This record gives sequence, structure tokens and C-alpha cells, in this order.
Amino acid sequence: MKGDPTVDRLLRHLHGGDPRALARAITLVEDQQPEAAGLLAGLDQKRIEDVLVLGLTGPPGAGKSTLTGALITALRKQKYRVGIIAIDPSSPISGGALLGDRIRMMEHALDWEVVVRSMATRGRLGGLCASAGAAARIMAASGCRVVILETVGIGQSEMDIVRLADLTALVLAPGFGDDIQAMKAGILEVADLLVVNKADQPGAGKLQLEMATVFTDPKEREERICATVANEGTGVAILLDRIFTLEGEFRSNGQLHARRKRSFQLETLDWAVEIVKADLREKLQTTTFTSTEPRQAAMELVKGFGKRI
Amino acid sequence: MKGDPTVDRLLRHLHGGDPRALARAITLVEDQQPEAAGLLAGLDQKRIEDVLVLGLTGPPGAGKSTLTGALITALRKQKYRVGIIAIDPSSPISGGALLGDRIRMMEHALDWEVVVRSMATRGRLGGLCASAGAAARIMAASGCRVVILETVGIGQSEMDIVRLADLTALVLAPGFGDDIQAMKAGILEVADLLVVNKADQPGAGKLQLEMATVFTDPKEREERICATVANEGTGVAILLDRIFTLEGEFRSNGQLHARRKRSFQLETLDWAVEIVKADLREKLQTTTFTSTEPRQAAMELVKGFGKRI
Repeated sequence: MKGDPTVDRLLRHLHGGDPRALARAITLVEDQQPEAAGLLAGLDQKRIEDVLVLGLTGPPGAGKSTLTGALITALRKQKYRVGIIAIDPSSPISGGALLGDRIRMMEHALDWEVVVRSMATRGRLGGLCASAGAAARIMAASGCRVVILETVGIGQSEMDIVRLADLTALVLAPGFGDDIQAMKAGILEVADLLVVNKADQPGAGKLQLEMATVFTDPKEREERICATVANEGTGVAILLDRIFTLEGEFRSNGQLHARRKRSFQLETLDWAVEIVKADLREKLQTTTFTSTEPRQAAMELVKGFGKRI
Repeated sequence: MKGDPTVDRLLRHLHGGDPRALARAITLVEDQQPEAAGLLAGLDQKRIEDVLVLGLTGPPGAGKSTLTGALITALRKQKYRVGIIAIDPSSPISGGALLGDRIRMMEHALDWEVVVRSMATRGRLGGLCASAGAAARIMAASGCRVVILETVGIGQSEMDIVRLADLTALVLAPGFGDDIQAMKAGILEVADLLVVNKADQPGAGKLQLEMATVFTDPKEREERICATVANEGTGVAILLDRIFTLEGEFRSNGQLHARRKRSFQLETLDWAVEIVKADLREKLQTTTFTSTEPRQAAMELVKGFGKRI
């Protein structure tokens, strides 16, 4: 807990910006070490208040990682420290492609003001929301102005992650627009900004027009859609400008506060479920069930847990 | 519970093969209605024993849905009733594409011996493993010889689903093979059969050669890799033959028994977690936390749940 000299030293180095302390702190939380609670409680609250957690999502192939790289470059020009949390499905099937994306981020590999952390969605000790949320706060405490939360936008756990962000940009590219009608309701649900990437490719104009119909308010239509060519850096400065403008709005109109309250609840529930799940898993190994039917066996398993005591 | 006249009537119709009773039964379980437990306990155990739950997974674009359609056609030629459970990430981003896949399955829409159920991974009441496992048993009880569990192979929840299957085929296509090295370990972990689909396209031969290196035993190399052109039906009869041969092996060497034991544990834990999670979520809404840090708030939340009483 707080007062632990090891934790105090780690916090000091972390707040001083030491990237090794940052890495160690995140690992400590991910592995649910006993020092995790004290560490998290000791983080610089002012920096956590000031950070922007930016969600970046979209289908594979839309150019999310390239855009992340371009945003890092733009943020570094403004001398900001940047954190990146890359949520990696790390399924055997997609593993390769994402590995490639990570490698592309290597252009910033030697810049100590750019801190990158990959998080796998499988074989985890803790819940993904919980770990990603904690990592974002640790990065904030280490001095990051922006933490980019990059996910492949498919699957429940990845969608939950998006809900942790203060502000989310959905990255699309021409060729993904055929089924736009079916997507529209969902887009509004998750995306504050729509980025039409690969805007120099055929079909980009059509995609932008389709995206425009998502917004009914002309002002929003103007401000919420950005065209980029991420691999050339085109449009990225404007995108970053819009991101910071929207952040300012969200800070003053209470949106940011409301979203952080929701994140707090999501993360708390996620941690709690992981804690109880570990106990249930342990009990599962030692229980001889009278029922061979899982639904009924589950009722036997949850005896003594919560309301069903 | 059992003895409930409504449940008894539903079970009678279900066992008689009525597709409406099947649909109602699955909905009842998905919605966690009070009759669910009695229904599940009353299912024909012999049919559940005899069914083959076939996992079909692979990256988007490899042709899983087309192959599913072709397998249905092959199974219907042999007069078997077939069930399909399509796990739909139903994220706003991928929603469109999957919707399209579902529509392609419409060629069997008028055949009452083909029963299809889509399951969304988001906004669920019950756990996905639990619901999919129960649906597979309900389909078995209604007389299905094979239940195909089709997932998009990305994300943790989708990977969990694959573990419910008695036997899993991984569908690949040329163009997805560039990062094969990174995938190899993972492939062995999930796939009993490797299907190289779109085998008439450039790169298919190279992909097959790369896949061959996954297996060290020459006999396995011969029997575990299949080439198909699903949209023409080429290779599908051989694939189905291999599936049934492997099923026979797994039944006689204890593999099937071991896997079903693992499925039972997965499903039981999944149901149990969902039950407890609902309680935790309820408590979350009414709790005033002394901590503003999620990890610590979670410890407050789990008080009274399980070991931490």
C-alpha cells in the first residue's frame, strides 16, 4: 500500500518520466501484484485530470496504425509526450497482421517521449478494460498529454475498450463503404469523429458524402468528419486540431466528466468480475457437480457468491 | 422446472423437429427465462451424445460463409439435418459485412432441415459461450446430426467459442498467408483441420505448402489439410469425409470426451460469471465508493462475493 518504499520509489521515477518505471508500473498492475493498489492510488491526480484518452478504432486495413504514427509525429512537433496502448486481439489468425502494424510504429521507437504498450486480449490475468484504463492513467501520470487507445474494431471486448476513451475517432477508408447504411446507427454510438483515411484513393469522395449523412446538424457535419492521407501526413494537423477543439468542448460541457464516470464504473466492474472469476475458476476445479447440465451446474457453482448465499 | 406442462410441450415439439419450437427454446435460454433450466435438463441426451459440433473459423474474407453453405449442401445430400450458429461480432464497424454473409446463406432459407441462428456478441444478457453451447445442444435435440459453429476468428470471445467445438476447421485463403510464420503456433492450438479455400486462385499452392509445415507427421499432413473452392463446391465432399473420419477417431480415442468435459467447464464458468456479474452490476449502481480508483473500488464491490466475505 501507500507508504511502501518500493512503491514510493517507483512512483517518484514514474512521475519523473522514466520510461522503465512506466513499463514496470504497467506490468505490476497487469500481473495484479500486491503493490498495484498502492501504486494506482499514488498517481498524480492532476495529470490524470489533464490527459486526453483518445480512442482510435476501425476495420483492419483502414490504416489505423499509420494514422496513429502520423498523429504521434504531429503531437511530437508540439512537444507533447504521447502514450499508445495498442489492443491486440492476438488471435492466431490475425496475429501476423497486427505484428506488422506494431513494427510500423518503430519509426518512433527511439523517441523516449513516445511510450507504447501492447495489450493482448487473450490469456490475460486481469480484465482488459481494467488493465487498459489503469495503463492510461499510469501513462498520464508519467507526463503524457495524450494517450491513444488503438483497437481493431471487432468483437465485444474491443468495443468495451472504446468506451474507456474520452473521445473516439473511427477510421474508415474507401472500399469499406459498401455497407454504410447498416453501419450508421452504430457509428453514431461509438464515434465522435469520423476519419476518411486514404482520401487520395478512388471512392473517398463517395465515402465522405455517405459519412456526411450520419450527421443532421450542418456544423457537426463540418467539424466531425476529417479526410486524411495518413502515410503522407496530409490532413493530420487539421484532425489533431479538431481533436483538441472537441476535447475543450467536452471539458466545458460536462461530457468528459460524464464519460469518465462511466469509465470508472466499467473498470470497477471489470476488476470486480476478474476477482470473482478467479475464485469461481478455483472452485470449479474442486467441485463435483450433481448436474451434468452447465446452466444447473453454474447454480451450484455460484452458491456462496453474492446474493445467492 | 421439469414437469412444467409448458416446458414438456415445448420439449415434445422440439424433439419432434418443429423449427418454431427450436427457435423458441433457444430464445428462452438466451433470455434466461425461468423455464430455461427445466428445458435444458429435459433435452434428449442420446442426440446430444451423437451430434458433431463443428467449429469453423478464419479471417474475414477467407470464405467461411460460402464454405458453410457448401457444407450444408453436402450434408443435405446425405439427408442430415444441419444446425448453424453464426457468431456475429455485430460491432457497428463490421456489421454490414456480416449481414451480407447471412444473406448468402439464404439459399437454404426454405429448407426446414437447415436451422440457422445468429448470435450477437454485444448487448447480451447471458454469456456467449453459455448461450452458444446451449443452442448447440438444443439443435442436437431437435435432430441435427451436425451443428456448425461459425465465428470470425478475431477477439477473445470468438476464440473462447471455438473451444466449445468437438472439432475445428480453420479456413484460410491465398493472400492471407504472408504472415504464416507468426501464426503457426496458434494454428495448432485451435485447428484440427486446415482448409485452403479459393484453391483456384494464385498463391493457393504456396499457402498449402506453408500449411504442410505445420504438421510434422506425414499422415496428419495428408489428412488434416484440405483444398476447396467453396463457391463451386470443389473439394467439399472430401472435406466432409475427413471431418467425419476425424470425428470417428476422436470418439474412439477419448478426444471427444475430453473436449466435451472442457466445454462443460467453460460453459459452467461462463453461466456462473454472468449470474454473479448481474449481481455486481446491480450493486455498482447503489454503492457509494470511498475510493475513486477502480482497482480499490472493485475490492469494495466484491465484499460479500465468494471467498472475500
